[in-house]
Amino acid sequence: MENKTKRYILPENEIPKYWYNIQADMVNKPMPPIHPGTKQPLKAEDLYPIFAEELCKQEVNQTDAWIKIPEEVREMYKYYRSTPLVRAYGLEKALDTPAHIYFKNESVSPVGSHKLNSALPQAYYCKAQGITNVTTETGAGQWGAALSYATKVFGLECAVYQVKISYEQKPYRRSIMQTFGAQVTPSPSMSTRAGKDILTANPNYSGSLGTAISEAIELALETPNCRYTLGSVLSHVALHQTIIGLEAEKQMEMAGEYPDIVIACFGGGSNFGGIAFPFMRHKILDGKKTRFIAAEPASCPKLTRGKFMYDFGDEAGYTPLLPMYTLGHNFAPANIHAGGLRYHGAGVIVSQLLKDGYMEAVDIKQLDSFDAGCLFAHTEGIIPAPESSHAIAATINEALKCKETGEEKVILFNLSGHGLIDMTAYDQYLSGDLVNYSLSEEEIAKNLEEIEKLK
Amino acid sequence: MENKTKRYILPENEIPKYWYNIQADMVNKPMPPIHPGTKQPLKAEDLYPIFAEELCKQEVNQTDAWIKIPEEVREMYKYYRSTPLVRAYGLEKALDTPAHIYFKNESVSPVGSHKLNSALPQAYYCKAQGITNVTTETGAGQWGAALSYATKVFGLECAVYQVKISYEQKPYRRSIMQTFGAQVTPSPSMSTRAGKDILTANPNYSGSLGTAISEAIELALETPNCRYTLGSVLSHVALHQTIIGLEAEKQMEMAGEYPDIVIACFGGGSNFGGIAFPFMRHKILDGKKTRFIAAEPASCPKLTRGKFMYDFGDEAGYTPLLPMYTLGHNFAPANIHAGGLRYHGAGVIVSQLLKDGYMEAVDIKQLDSFDAGCLFAHTEGIIPAPESSHAIAATINEALKCKETGEEKVILFNLSGHGLIDMTAYDQYLSGDLVNYSLSEEEIAKNLEEIEKLK
Repeated sequence: MENKTKRYILPENEIPKYWYNIQADMVNKPMPPIHPGTKQPLKAEDLYPIFAEELCKQEVNQTDAWIKIPEEVREMYKYYRSTPLVRAYGLEKALDTPAHIYFKNESVSPVGSHKLNSALPQAYYCKAQGITNVTTETGAGQWGAALSYATKVFGLECAVYQVKISYEQKPYRRSIMQTFGAQVTPSPSMSTRAGKDILTANPNYSGSLGTAISEAIELALETPNCRYTLGSVLSHVALHQTIIGLEAEKQMEMAGEYPDIVIACFGGGSNFGGIAFPFMRHKILDGKKTRFIAAEPASCPKLTRGKFMYDFGDEAGYTPLLPMYTLGHNFAPANIHAGGLRYHGAGVIVSQLLKDGYMEAVDIKQLDSFDAGCLFAHTEGIIPAPESSHAIAATINEALKCKETGEEKVILFNLSGHGLIDMTAYDQYLSGDLVNYSLSEEEIAKNLEEIEKLK
Repeated sequence: MENKTKRYILPENEIPKYWYNIQADMVNKPMPPIHPGTKQPLKAEDLYPIFAEELCKQEVNQTDAWIKIPEEVREMYKYYRSTPLVRAYGLEKALDTPAHIYFKNESVSPVGSHKLNSALPQAYYCKAQGITNVTTETGAGQWGAALSYATKVFGLECAVYQVKISYEQKPYRRSIMQTFGAQVTPSPSMSTRAGKDILTANPNYSGSLGTAISEAIELALETPNCRYTLGSVLSHVALHQTIIGLEAEKQMEMAGEYPDIVIACFGGGSNFGGIAFPFMRHKILDGKKTRFIAAEPASCPKLTRGKFMYDFGDEAGYTPLLPMYTLGHNFAPANIHAGGLRYHGAGVIVSQLLKDGYMEAVDIKQLDSFDAGCLFAHTEGIIPAPESSHAIAATINEALKCKETGEEKVILFNLSGHGLIDMTAYDQYLSGDLVNYSLSEEEIAKNLEEIEKLK
């Protein structure tokens, strides 16, 4: 590793000016969201009461491959972008693999994860439309922290419902959001009808992203001049995150390589789509053979064991019906530490791409993700977020396959965030208290049975 | 702030190849360390039982202005350096100041602070000499985290004594060190004679850097093939940290500016010396008029209210007597959250420079430091370490003076680390539970009386 370049950083004028909208290039477009009452496809304007109008338009835009990044947003990006592309020589050496491993280090964003990439434009579009208040949900707290800062930048009020298990496991993330001036409520809460219903039925429920989304949407609909924002799953969020892959494309060029495999962890799809879609463009348009691997937790396996069908995006059924790989909107994920991956469904774009064979998915057990995270910390010095450790585990698996075959494959993964706020999880791992969660076929099937009746 | 460059980053080949040793250029050299028994000046070899030999030589080197960075260390630097120089447009706007504020962002180091800059060479020199085990102390845990990773990189065992108040206030930092494989003990402990003595006299003592240093030195002296390492105060540590200022010099040139004022927080002097010395070189050699301001906590004011005299570097008196501004080695600092600034003395170089008028010092009250830290978080998105917030407070004071006078001064400060592990402190601040600590002239005088007798 002597005298070789370790990091690739773009000059400011090379920071992309457009996001990439893969919907425009997809052979089979995602099927439309459907109104649960009328069973009719939704138009952008049907979503206006919930999201800023510009975001609704981006959500259903299947024609424009390139969407201009507003100047105000790009100026804010410049404070932390480009993030570095790093060659993981330390990890390669520890694995004794011929593979070339690169990671895109989104953990150096001021809030510690890739989430700021979408929080900034979402806050900006709300502000530009004259909105004064926004609501959201957060799992691990990465999205909530990013939105809290982004709303502060653009002068908006921010209310966050944080999944209760994360609120308790990660008090520092709550403090971060509060330091940025946001109002934070553990979910389920008694402040919404959706929260009350769930708490009444199950007083000890530790929460899920699906439930917190219901609460945040309800608050947005009942507050004047307020809109809801979401940190993953939706197509406009993945759109904003493509800044990751667009930068990585230029940076891989600087390194003189092109990835054979692109890997990211998978919760709703935002960091996966962010790094994968710009490269997948060349698979769709130019026939490149790159493999794309989404790494999801074994305890919340919608891509590997869920079913492609119409389902709600939230627990209470406030969202439209979405065509996606799902475990059922009422699926209650196990209390793994990767809170950002505890979501029952996948975004509609990724769902269609998986269905059409453009990408693969693997499931990672909790203990394997921490094994991988610790090896990464030892060899690269960065303690990864438990979510990101799923991508690292999948990367290690592929790098070890290269060791067996002797292939010098180029692997690129997204380090979506650091784990400095997740040290209680590492504590549990180091003390041997961490467990794997299993999920039987019966449990999955039973949950999906109810969903089949929806459409 | 539209369309203006926000960040300056050096290409890898511009990362400095030499550290800057200001001792060689000082008009009045630091007076020598003195053996407490013989009262004779110490030579480098007198320190060999405690530190790696190369570090001892650097410690007393008053002739070579430039020390070559070992290739192995520079290769590791490349993973996170250069750190960005950032123009703080958001802070400038909030203060409505004509001043140009820049900060060097050391918080993006993989361990979250500047400490890795010295941990890597210290671990390297130990390894090169065949040492297998190292010990150290840590206050806030920044140094301990950095050394834990650096020793992992070079294959050494690492034992850390963490000041008990920090061990309790910042459990995440303990976990970080353990995740990197270090053994962590709260100090004072019963594992050393020094610790036992202090605990016997005062069972509730919450610890200090001085005490933890005693314990770490004792363990090093009693363990075969083991050396002690220190994260601040000593001249070789400041030497390694000059990579910060050397980079900043080139980056300010990229920005087309030169600082009128350079500011850093002050604990023992490592991050202050790191950013200041390369610029001070031009004050000494070229007559530049730059002001240098060390920002220390009002509750631990060795520079502003201490006395220049020979004193021990540690609580138990294991170190040589050092010529420095001190509050007395038995001074017990108040339990402020800026654990890294809770040290009774200043390094010998900084002490001489302050005495000779090359720099100034200001003291910052705890609440003012948190006011400043939160304003910085709101305007720049980065939650600063409580230590670094002292530098921010001093910067804000200078920027507000510029507002009064209308002067367009260029202010550069060092953001030594982020505060993501210090959120309990922010919690206390936000809930109004944080207090200022006052210190009477009598307390200071009484403590120093005993020190006078030492020499």
